[in-house]
Amino acid sequence: MNAPIKSNGVNFDNLEVGFDVPALPGMDEADIQTPCLILDLDALERNIRKMGDYAKAHGMRHRSHGKMHKSVDVQKLQESLGGAVGVCCQKVSEAEVFVRGGIKDVLVSNQVRDPAKIDRLARLPKLGSRIIVCVDDVANVADLSEAAQKHGTTIECFVEIDCGAGRCGVKTADAVVEIARAIDAAPGLKFTGIQAYQGAMQHMDSYDDRKAKLDAAIAQVKEAVYALKAEGLEPELVSGGGTGSYYFESNSGVYNELQCGSYAFMDADYGRILDKDGKRIDQGEWENALFILTSVMSHAKPDKAIVDAGLKAQSVDSGLPFVYGRDDVKYVKCSDEHGVVDDPQGVLKVNDKLRLVPGHCDPTCNVHDWYVGVRNGKVETLWPVSARGKAY
Amino acid sequence: MNAPIKSNGVNFDNLEVGFDVPALPGMDEADIQTPCLILDLDALERNIRKMGDYAKAHGMRHRSHGKMHKSVDVQKLQESLGGAVGVCCQKVSEAEVFVRGGIKDVLVSNQVRDPAKIDRLARLPKLGSRIIVCVDDVANVADLSEAAQKHGTTIECFVEIDCGAGRCGVKTADAVVEIARAIDAAPGLKFTGIQAYQGAMQHMDSYDDRKAKLDAAIAQVKEAVYALKAEGLEPELVSGGGTGSYYFESNSGVYNELQCGSYAFMDADYGRILDKDGKRIDQGEWENALFILTSVMSHAKPDKAIVDAGLKAQSVDSGLPFVYGRDDVKYVKCSDEHGVVDDPQGVLKVNDKLRLVPGHCDPTCNVHDWYVGVRNGKVETLWPVSARGKAY
Repeated sequence: MNAPIKSNGVNFDNLEVGFDVPALPGMDEADIQTPCLILDLDALERNIRKMGDYAKAHGMRHRSHGKMHKSVDVQKLQESLGGAVGVCCQKVSEAEVFVRGGIKDVLVSNQVRDPAKIDRLARLPKLGSRIIVCVDDVANVADLSEAAQKHGTTIECFVEIDCGAGRCGVKTADAVVEIARAIDAAPGLKFTGIQAYQGAMQHMDSYDDRKAKLDAAIAQVKEAVYALKAEGLEPELVSGGGTGSYYFESNSGVYNELQCGSYAFMDADYGRILDKDGKRIDQGEWENALFILTSVMSHAKPDKAIVDAGLKAQSVDSGLPFVYGRDDVKYVKCSDEHGVVDDPQGVLKVNDKLRLVPGHCDPTCNVHDWYVGVRNGKVETLWPVSARGKAY
Repeated sequence: MNAPIKSNGVNFDNLEVGFDVPALPGMDEADIQTPCLILDLDALERNIRKMGDYAKAHGMRHRSHGKMHKSVDVQKLQESLGGAVGVCCQKVSEAEVFVRGGIKDVLVSNQVRDPAKIDRLARLPKLGSRIIVCVDDVANVADLSEAAQKHGTTIECFVEIDCGAGRCGVKTADAVVEIARAIDAAPGLKFTGIQAYQGAMQHMDSYDDRKAKLDAAIAQVKEAVYALKAEGLEPELVSGGGTGSYYFESNSGVYNELQCGSYAFMDADYGRILDKDGKRIDQGEWENALFILTSVMSHAKPDKAIVDAGLKAQSVDSGLPFVYGRDDVKYVKCSDEHGVVDDPQGVLKVNDKLRLVPGHCDPTCNVHDWYVGVRNGKVETLWPVSARGKAY
């Protein structure tokens, strides 16, 4: 058992339960104001340690994905308990939060094109952190270089390969080499490696289907790496991998850095994918550590309980949440402020609390201001969702 | 033309574009950091005035729904320009924000059952605002009464009728009378009226389908009101109505208060419903005033532009956004941080900006911290989404 976890830099003395925060450290779990996000700290720590052990055993760096939790505190736990080497995030505004929060190795695993954003990015290394950004267009190189020179900093660059996500990134080894060469020649920039995240396969249920997609991605990345080596541009880092694929990248012989996010919290959409033995990954590989705590607020119909967690407490883009540990009741409908829970036997009462496993953790975390960390029925800490709303 | 609108109580002097805010007053619209919410202030003011004129002409009070915008500034505009009599909201934490922001008539159009929340609610009238809450269970009455007496305040109560939304509320006139009688007899409480919002029909495309649902709701409400009058409990207020129905309540002869929210901003899901002439309501009845401003951040494939507004910038529960004023490009896919825009003719360039009309305004506003108010190509004001994340 650990010493109680403190939140970094939050003064709780003047915070009021309700207006400011859903709970305060030391409260009983039963007194938390709902709906809010709670973290089962024991489960969270086990998940973090497990991924850390896996990465270490496979000689991989693990750059935990901060776009999922958007929390400096969670990131620091991933570094201290799980040996994470730094963070990746998706927006300059997130990078600003992580850098100011003391994270020393920050990858913006995305393109930065707006001139003001490039300028903001180029200033960040002055605060003492390594900054890496992705590039998929040679036209971006001159802008990044100019900003880095203006601020006297170095921006490290990954060339992004689209290995199946169908969003940003180039497809061919020739295009990778062309961009890497431009980066290498540009003052203020450093060609550091490859970003190759196969996002589209992470949520496929079947292990074999996921493997087939990753095999293709690995072949594509290898081809690019060979081409780079032939040019004398060997990448220091080849980065990618998510909760549905990290074992493939770890055994690929070409990737050396993972970018897993959801493993730490889990959610319903990831939970239902199957491991190589056909078992749901939330039934052994990872534990549900994140929940939306919700209360029954009306039971005017005998077979339906109305709970207080609706669309303002979660994102349903990947489906509805499920009620954790309960087969007798089911969350069946979500509107702005309400959830409808089927309660055919009428077992729920007003003010009963349920733990919901959200459909999709990333955008669900992004609607909350606080994680309420609980252990043994007590609120141990509150952590701000530090980069909440930082999308720009 | 109005004098420039100021934000209430925000000091912009120490706010940094990027880390703190997506823009600052006085900036060109072209320099706004994306993605963020922008409000076309001219369109917003026209919508607000139009609804105000309608309510006035029909002898209706308009209690604008603050759960949609969650903004003290927008609410104040609805009161000053549109004659709104106060606000409704869905959670105690929202009510706390509106009361502290100076709104004088606040309805929590929802049940409040948790003891700590009831206590928070009962304290609010001390700050000088009228507080009304909904009740659908006689067991709630004693708790509300006890808290009001403890704080020496009066909590006004609406009995909530479930007239088709299928969430909270009682169904029969007998149940309404039973609860109203209990409220009337309870020290510290006042029976003020009826909450009867038919939420389930608001988004039906066909005017006639909506009318049929509202006719049934009106009949149900009338029956309850007759039963209350027979008991000497005539309701002062009969409140309900949304953007898809307000004309039915206004002409019902029984409702006297409207609760419209989305009319002010509009969204894609509401926009596609049809008025009585078969015309989309966003093509004449209301104007799109709310947009997600987004930028093209990658165009590595010739027919697809990747924009920076994904699930962290909106809720897609009611479908994807559409690109405002453009038939040549189409937003077709949304992931955490990216949107994929079909661009078959390759007309878009990196850093081009698009205005997206969100699928559903309420949960979309709830992921943003700021409204950027624009007029004539300039940023005129920023308004905080004051009650953002206040779900508890």
